[in-house]
Amino acid sequence: MGDEIARKGHFYVIGVGPGAPDLMTLRAASIIRSCDVLIAPRAETSTESLALQVAAACIDRQEVIEQIYPMARDQRQTESCWARVADIVVERCQRGQSVAHLTIGDPLLYSTAGYVIDQVTGRIPADHWHVIPGVAAFQAAAAAVRRTLTRQNDRLLLMPATDINEVEAALGVCETLVLYKVGPRLKQLEALLEEHKLAAESDLVCHASQPEKETILRGLDAGCDAKVGYMSTVIVPVGRRRWADTREE
Amino acid sequence: MGDEIARKGHFYVIGVGPGAPDLMTLRAASIIRSCDVLIAPRAETSTESLALQVAAACIDRQEVIEQIYPMARDQRQTESCWARVADIVVERCQRGQSVAHLTIGDPLLYSTAGYVIDQVTGRIPADHWHVIPGVAAFQAAAAAVRRTLTRQNDRLLLMPATDINEVEAALGVCETLVLYKVGPRLKQLEALLEEHKLAAESDLVCHASQPEKETILRGLDAGCDAKVGYMSTVIVPVGRRRWADTREE
Repeated sequence: MGDEIARKGHFYVIGVGPGAPDLMTLRAASIIRSCDVLIAPRAETSTESLALQVAAACIDRQEVIEQIYPMARDQRQTESCWARVADIVVERCQRGQSVAHLTIGDPLLYSTAGYVIDQVTGRIPADHWHVIPGVAAFQAAAAAVRRTLTRQNDRLLLMPATDINEVEAALGVCETLVLYKVGPRLKQLEALLEEHKLAAESDLVCHASQPEKETILRGLDAGCDAKVGYMSTVIVPVGRRRWADTREE
Repeated sequence: MGDEIARKGHFYVIGVGPGAPDLMTLRAASIIRSCDVLIAPRAETSTESLALQVAAACIDRQEVIEQIYPMARDQRQTESCWARVADIVVERCQRGQSVAHLTIGDPLLYSTAGYVIDQVTGRIPADHWHVIPGVAAFQAAAAAVRRTLTRQNDRLLLMPATDINEVEAALGVCETLVLYKVGPRLKQLEALLEEHKLAAESDLVCHASQPEKETILRGLDAGCDAKVGYMSTVIVPVGRRRWADTREE
């Protein structure tokens, strides 16, 4: 168990989970420990790679490459940054090294890993690269407030809170709405949820599961004066859908 | 790391992940190993508890209680089953034992754990029970087919495929649609996706990550003749939403 060892010439896209080191999976920890090269993304606005901090206890003799990526929402700049990462990955794999790209959360949900995946596809044999899923921030946020997200026929909608009109539209099509990147739009969001009588039941979790950083606000009806950043999740319980009392087909 | 030990008199609702034992988190493995009592749900239609199989390597001297639960979609029957589990949990915690309830996937996403949480709330001191998130089946399914689920402003909608009209409506409100419990509705779903020209790009994963059981079908346009059960995930890439080229506020 947890004994899958990184193979030479293989590439692993690894989700290290939401931030608590022990919310990494056994597989992620094992591959990271046995890998030759670790690539860790770091936002240009940060001093350290969060993914690297999470995996710190698994890092010893591996070569670590920190990749600084732009925070600008510029498609071309973003792609050219990750194209350089892909070049490194392909070159190291061809040299026979095992390479892992670390990412916070799950690599397939709002992750920079998506760009790397695009860029390596077709350049590494299909059976030589792998994605290792990880617990996402919204799951850690829900666990922190112990709120059931979905049951029976419920629909969960997950989206960034970038456009308040789209958030409002989303309230009509799901039983639980999960919003990422709430940050500067919190006041707008609070007003919207008040209007829909959903504020009191909604929760805000920042830096879910991250040691010494996690903050929880239960109820968005009292107003939040704290500075809320990018790593923020709001969970809005819109309603519930129950089964009809029919037997599962 | 991974050294959080189960505390006496505490209750842990633990997601053991989608099925591969090494996709458990370090925290889940550590709590399970150190716990006095493990409660493992088993569907009345199954011969073994899948959650228990996943955690097998962590089980040694713990007392294991298998809880058989009804598969009927009957609210009253379901609640009375989990009320009995809650009684056991409360009694054991009061006796000073540490108790864990194991569940496949994430405890807050379509899990029987939701019922247990409802029933223990208020009966165990709030700081004496904990939810440990786990990798969900849809994440393992996406990892198996290496498909980015969301990027930038994309919306992800997760729902059971129980009503084909609601599935069709969902296609209009997200960029990625993830369907659970496809089972007997696969043919209907294939036809719907064909109609929307989405079948060729959609993937079906059954028993995601489960050793010797995982099956993958890429593209739902050729028709699938295999018997597809309850543990099935379909990923439908409906579209993509890109950033405007603005800097993050």
